[in-house]
Amino acid sequence: MTPPRFISFDGIDGVGKSTQIERLAEYLRDQGTDVLVVRDPGTTEIGSKLREILLDGSMSMHRRTEAMLFMASRCEMIETVLRPALAAGKTVISDRFLLANVVYQSTNDTQGVPQVAPEILWKMGHLACGGLHPDLTLLLDLPVDQAYGRLGQKVDRMEARGRDYLDRVRHAFLQQLPATGGRSVVVSAAGSVEEVAERVTQAVFAGQTSSQS
Amino acid sequence: MTPPRFISFDGIDGVGKSTQIERLAEYLRDQGTDVLVVRDPGTTEIGSKLREILLDGSMSMHRRTEAMLFMASRCEMIETVLRPALAAGKTVISDRFLLANVVYQSTNDTQGVPQVAPEILWKMGHLACGGLHPDLTLLLDLPVDQAYGRLGQKVDRMEARGRDYLDRVRHAFLQQLPATGGRSVVVSAAGSVEEVAERVTQAVFAGQTSSQS
Repeated sequence: MTPPRFISFDGIDGVGKSTQIERLAEYLRDQGTDVLVVRDPGTTEIGSKLREILLDGSMSMHRRTEAMLFMASRCEMIETVLRPALAAGKTVISDRFLLANVVYQSTNDTQGVPQVAPEILWKMGHLACGGLHPDLTLLLDLPVDQAYGRLGQKVDRMEARGRDYLDRVRHAFLQQLPATGGRSVVVSAAGSVEEVAERVTQAVFAGQTSSQS
Repeated sequence: MTPPRFISFDGIDGVGKSTQIERLAEYLRDQGTDVLVVRDPGTTEIGSKLREILLDGSMSMHRRTEAMLFMASRCEMIETVLRPALAAGKTVISDRFLLANVVYQSTNDTQGVPQVAPEILWKMGHLACGGLHPDLTLLLDLPVDQAYGRLGQKVDRMEARGRDYLDRVRHAFLQQLPATGGRSVVVSAAGSVEEVAERVTQAVFAGQTSSQS
């Protein structure tokens, strides 16, 4: 059973991406697969610098400028971390990818600021990624109330915008998923960690002959 | 005689862009035109911040990341300075525009680092500019030896790369000029300031009926 070489996990906060990524990485490593988990921003020097700028509330900028900075950060991560890992034969699991940029940059928040159109963001993103896309995108999906509940105390700037906003984000994820380029699967994030992990593994190896199951 | 609403000047360093922009702005103002001169980066807060990062030699980054940061800076200048000025009825003269980004980011320097292809940069740039392009691009052109001579002591990082590099940049300007979108004119920058200014004015009002000449 060979897993896809480049898998990304996405979805709104609270659906359990980090936990499921850890589980899948562990599962694949147990099978002898060389796995690298990446995330952006934060894995490159320039990415960290851009994140500082993007989170600096005092510095206002146009939505398209903001989108380009997010894309620049992703570009750097891809070229310095992701592509070299794939070239070295590793399987890469990415905590969010271009889909998240498109969804978050195109979804109107409660302040009513006009956002950038998804088709513009996809074009921008494909340029930033140099055409690279995940072989498989797993969208962990959960009704907002349940995801919000799981977040507990971790309500940061994004969550502070409210459940209505998160609901629009959830639906944008579902709507934009088919545009990711590779195979894409919506995985229900309801139930226990074990149950979701089982669904993830099934999605990863869907259509492949397994000698273990 | 109505000048084009959005004029950009471009060309290698040393051809006299700043001087000619000043002259044209003065000429148009004398005619009663409300003129704004813009340049990038440096006119917006985020642009200045990005310039800091781009000029910080200690922070290495992929060429496409670098290109996206230049484009993000231009996007911000366009949305916060240029578009509002056009909307207010002003005539805008831009000291360099997207053409310069494409030329400098696509021209191999002497270190042999592969650059980004012009067609990728134009796509990236059109997204950054939101489709806006100059009505008229004036390319001030001069053989490199003459331009280099005019620079005198002002040999910065760019010029330090050598005449051969500048020569490739000059030819890239000539080659990419037709892709700018609006009307484009190559103006010889040889001769006195007066002579070049006369050529610039002729190019700006080319094809228009003048009551003054």
